[in-house]
Amino acid sequence: MELTILGCHAATPRKKAQTTSQLLEVKGHLILIDCGEGTQMQLRKLGIKFARIRYIFISHLHGDHFYGLIGLISTFRLLGREAELHIYGPKGIKEIITLQLKLAKSWTDYPLYFHELDTPDSVVVFEDDKIKVSTVPLDHRVYTNGYLFEEKTGLRKVNIEAAKTFGVEVCDMENLKAGKNFVDSTGKLIPNKSLTFDPELPKSYAFCSDTAYKEDIVTLIKNVTFLYHESTFLKNHMDLAIKTKHSTAAQAAKIAAMANAKGLILGHYSSRYGDLNSFLEEAKEFFENVHLAEDGKSFKI
Amino acid sequence: MELTILGCHAATPRKKAQTTSQLLEVKGHLILIDCGEGTQMQLRKLGIKFARIRYIFISHLHGDHFYGLIGLISTFRLLGREAELHIYGPKGIKEIITLQLKLAKSWTDYPLYFHELDTPDSVVVFEDDKIKVSTVPLDHRVYTNGYLFEEKTGLRKVNIEAAKTFGVEVCDMENLKAGKNFVDSTGKLIPNKSLTFDPELPKSYAFCSDTAYKEDIVTLIKNVTFLYHESTFLKNHMDLAIKTKHSTAAQAAKIAAMANAKGLILGHYSSRYGDLNSFLEEAKEFFENVHLAEDGKSFKI
Repeated sequence: MELTILGCHAATPRKKAQTTSQLLEVKGHLILIDCGEGTQMQLRKLGIKFARIRYIFISHLHGDHFYGLIGLISTFRLLGREAELHIYGPKGIKEIITLQLKLAKSWTDYPLYFHELDTPDSVVVFEDDKIKVSTVPLDHRVYTNGYLFEEKTGLRKVNIEAAKTFGVEVCDMENLKAGKNFVDSTGKLIPNKSLTFDPELPKSYAFCSDTAYKEDIVTLIKNVTFLYHESTFLKNHMDLAIKTKHSTAAQAAKIAAMANAKGLILGHYSSRYGDLNSFLEEAKEFFENVHLAEDGKSFKI
Repeated sequence: MELTILGCHAATPRKKAQTTSQLLEVKGHLILIDCGEGTQMQLRKLGIKFARIRYIFISHLHGDHFYGLIGLISTFRLLGREAELHIYGPKGIKEIITLQLKLAKSWTDYPLYFHELDTPDSVVVFEDDKIKVSTVPLDHRVYTNGYLFEEKTGLRKVNIEAAKTFGVEVCDMENLKAGKNFVDSTGKLIPNKSLTFDPELPKSYAFCSDTAYKEDIVTLIKNVTFLYHESTFLKNHMDLAIKTKHSTAAQAAKIAAMANAKGLILGHYSSRYGDLNSFLEEAKEFFENVHLAEDGKSFKI
């Protein structure tokens, strides 16, 4: 899993501050999470082959999280895209996008699917043989979901040396990877564990933005490998956090600690703060492995 | 009059190519013309005090001309704007913007007015004591207007030396500027021309994008000071120009020549061309005073 922060600042794009968008590479999928204005320019600037994006997950319909979506959809069309594009987001997103395509007489030539959400419960929104994506209902001024991306346990890895020793043929390899035992030419059963290694432990990533402090999400993201949790404010602006339904760095860290996350990434900083290290310091009081999101920065998960 | 090109490239924003947006400073007005994605970032990058923008004119509802509008409107709200904002553009623009504000529960706190256009005729859309703005109906794949911005003739300039000689008092100055004659203390009439200079000749600017070659516009923009006319293609791609209802550099220059413009600015270049000087060369065959629009470049008109 690799996460690239395309933008991590709150409210409005500034000279050197993009609004929220992230790119998650997981098991061959290139997934876009939120899409603030200018996301397509950031993708180009970072040299990302963004035609590979097939799934876009939008948390909520505040501009700093989705104003770049219509531009990206249009650019895909101009680039001659043929592959399907799936958009997951709050109810209303389809109307916003299709109204603009209709008035521009610019329907996409590629299949564009909307998966609109309006339930307050956590639901599985996407699943294939490699990953599963569920919503993490958040508490903000409009209907908002975070998303939990979970790898599925992969196939077992064949121990090539052992396989040779026991005379395993190429045609038996898939069975071994799937966990089946092996019967050799003498009819003797060789247990799978003697011929394979455990697969890598599946990893997971939870994106939680924007939200007030909400302990309910802890059970949904329990033991997550990496958590991105918004920290719009520092705790000295708790009044603003409560009023605008955002979180502080300390609150983000508390959620990470309760969820037993391996790592925490902070972001969605209010423009009132000059030095972002204060976010790191504040969070470290409650959780050790904290990182600051920065526009253009990548994290190996 | 000063024109700043915020973006001048066709179709989609690229690494170093913004889509259409221009800023026109005229007689104290700061006017935005079109608003491609990322326009607000360009305004910040160029250090423009964009809160002063009060009028925005949108040519048509293709994304490369207006996808940045919703972001700019939202940012004005976040910056605490109180002044009125007037948007002129094709019918449908109000629905697009208000739908997004409604779903985000983010109505502007400042008065936002839409002036929707759907007539195929040229109409005056704005007028005050300093300027007049009319539409220039264009020929594109969707309903499109260019805009003609005309300064009104200013007040006459008082000849201070002559005024002293004839004993003009301060309280008479406004009458002189308005063109009235002066009666001195002996009852003698002094003609206004002896006491004033002619005002500066009013200037005008026509923005014509996007459009197929359309000679009908010549009468509307006759004797314009500066004309911006799109030149998406060079003449070797005339087939594409016809198909997509765009113009070539040669066609833009022919319009400028027929309109007796003082100067021509080319722009809205297709990304297929590396060297923009070919546009200049092609246009110069038909019109001498040609300039290339470039992102960030300003023109004194």
